[in-house]
Amino acid sequence: MSNPEITQPRVVGDSREAPLRARLDQLTKPPGSLGRLEDLAARLGAIQGSPRPETRPRRLVVFAADHGVVASGVTAWPSDVTSLMIDNIVGGGAACSALARAHDVELRLVDVGASGPLRDDGPLLRVARVANGTADLFHGPAMSLEQFDEAWRVGDEEAKRALAEGARVLAAGEMGIGNTTAASCLIALLTGLDVDAAVGRGAGADDATLARKREVVAAATERARAQLAGEASPRAALASVAGFELIAMAGFFAAGAAGGATLVIDGVIATAGALVAEQLAPGSREAMIAAHLSVEPAHRAALDALGLEPFLDWGLRLGEGTGALLLVPLLDSAAAMLREMATFADLGLGGGEDDDQDSDDEGRTPSDGGGQA
Amino acid sequence: MSNPEITQPRVVGDSREAPLRARLDQLTKPPGSLGRLEDLAARLGAIQGSPRPETRPRRLVVFAADHGVVASGVTAWPSDVTSLMIDNIVGGGAACSALARAHDVELRLVDVGASGPLRDDGPLLRVARVANGTADLFHGPAMSLEQFDEAWRVGDEEAKRALAEGARVLAAGEMGIGNTTAASCLIALLTGLDVDAAVGRGAGADDATLARKREVVAAATERARAQLAGEASPRAALASVAGFELIAMAGFFAAGAAGGATLVIDGVIATAGALVAEQLAPGSREAMIAAHLSVEPAHRAALDALGLEPFLDWGLRLGEGTGALLLVPLLDSAAAMLREMATFADLGLGGGEDDDQDSDDEGRTPSDGGGQA
Repeated sequence: MSNPEITQPRVVGDSREAPLRARLDQLTKPPGSLGRLEDLAARLGAIQGSPRPETRPRRLVVFAADHGVVASGVTAWPSDVTSLMIDNIVGGGAACSALARAHDVELRLVDVGASGPLRDDGPLLRVARVANGTADLFHGPAMSLEQFDEAWRVGDEEAKRALAEGARVLAAGEMGIGNTTAASCLIALLTGLDVDAAVGRGAGADDATLARKREVVAAATERARAQLAGEASPRAALASVAGFELIAMAGFFAAGAAGGATLVIDGVIATAGALVAEQLAPGSREAMIAAHLSVEPAHRAALDALGLEPFLDWGLRLGEGTGALLLVPLLDSAAAMLREMATFADLGLGGGEDDDQDSDDEGRTPSDGGGQA
Repeated sequence: MSNPEITQPRVVGDSREAPLRARLDQLTKPPGSLGRLEDLAARLGAIQGSPRPETRPRRLVVFAADHGVVASGVTAWPSDVTSLMIDNIVGGGAACSALARAHDVELRLVDVGASGPLRDDGPLLRVARVANGTADLFHGPAMSLEQFDEAWRVGDEEAKRALAEGARVLAAGEMGIGNTTAASCLIALLTGLDVDAAVGRGAGADDATLARKREVVAAATERARAQLAGEASPRAALASVAGFELIAMAGFFAAGAAGGATLVIDGVIATAGALVAEQLAPGSREAMIAAHLSVEPAHRAALDALGLEPFLDWGLRLGEGTGALLLVPLLDSAAAMLREMATFADLGLGGGEDDDQDSDDEGRTPSDGGGQA
């Protein structure tokens, strides 16, 4: 797909990483011997512009919403499950609840458009429904432009609130039966990926449901592509196939990036939201770290379009931000390495000043030594 | 290789996992949707025989020693680096120091046979040198049987001490210039792996050094295989090509497994030690979790022989137990999932009792629902 209104982010090296890489190579280990942990440290330090990146406080905001497209038979699971899982998260019994507690991650849940009644209330819940679910994107636009803007604003507010309350690292999660269908549409629209390659089984669609899902995504994406090619704004095309939680996540990421947060991107739904953020607020991707690779086939294409390489490949397909939560303690590891490891100079083996090392390190630093030799 | 004295552990399913898998499938998520995190939880729970596994307190013991084979040109790095890095670990500036602090892992360092002088002392250091480095395994046995037993005993004591002090999770790390050569010999000996496939570049050997390393490993392994085929005990064959830290790790793992600890296995050196433990104390592997896959080529063969599948593939080649330290917080995640997540029954969607769920769950539990649908 080549469309002048849709800017393709490119996969590029991150020049901001250079001073971090130089710092990592001064630490008391063979250069590169910590592999992907060094990549993670370099990215984290580059985003924060510091060799002493901070990983606390950190917050996960889970955005929940329902999808009218469930009526078109794209999933075997009823929309009721969305509200049920909101209750479960509020009650502290969901996967994201347990993982957030384990790693000191503040958790908030924003109902940005579920359709069922909620049983519980609690301090971590915000109800900000744009509507009781989207319209069925198979038959027409999922939401109006006004609804798009309202969902975006909810996410924007959440990021600004988190930053005002001190958070340095932000992650977004989601809960919404039907949302892999919307995410597949958005990813196909924004990356040009073929619909067949963009559609997966979500939470376990059988062959018939998968075929139906492909039909629905193909029709909706074709309509949205025509909108993009016409005079409609990109927002109208995105609104046509999106979900409230997806757009809220996009607003959250855009405001988080603008506000200096480090963004940890979860799975395929969050990455679709990240693509929308990058589309409407270019440069947002510079604040992003991709936590993991989802089993959903569209995820890799979405990550490639954002120039992000995921750090974990653990076969996750749950949502709720659980993949982002898995990476959080490894951010702590990466930050600790940068912040606390001695340099060869500290051990009296290199030059005196870190910034001066090139002048007299040659031949004296066992910078390729140590470790498994 | 087929040798009646060397028992090949087989890759087998872990039947102890069945009740844990059943429990995981009752939790409020689509079955299997947390992928490898569920595998980790099942393994952890199986080892501890509990759906509420504990991950604290946890301790890493780094065993350090030198290798006479360095004189035969298998690495570009001098043995002095071993003592230097002991000082660095004691001083708190090494990679393992930073990662251990980040995740509440108690750290101890045992000098079981370094050759150089130590600069620092401190509460985490134990000096228990069997000798100032091994003999050169290219020219003869690396150590005597008495030295083998002494090194084993040092590791055994460390595991028992850790358990007596309350540790539930134990990891071993190592520091020793030249130790990938010894580990390659042990893995070739115990798995039958071809020498060429068993030898890697360690901390960065060039082509000439790699060729030399292969020559040395081939000769030493051939000698040890002959010892195994003869009347010598397996211990004599192992002693012929081992290192003090490798045998101390083996004793540590064997005693840890016998004492009920959960063992987190680091990279290629630690896994060679784990193979020795399994050889001399069969069943030790039942307590083991493989943290990561090293870039060293022998590692996969050693893991396969132990029936272990690593959880991270981050391109590590540092040692010091850093790979084990990376996995530790993910053990916390896995344990939190098992311990704290609600079941569908808790939400009033399944049967009353966990053990009774099969009787009335059918058709009522959205056990394949939720998450990305």
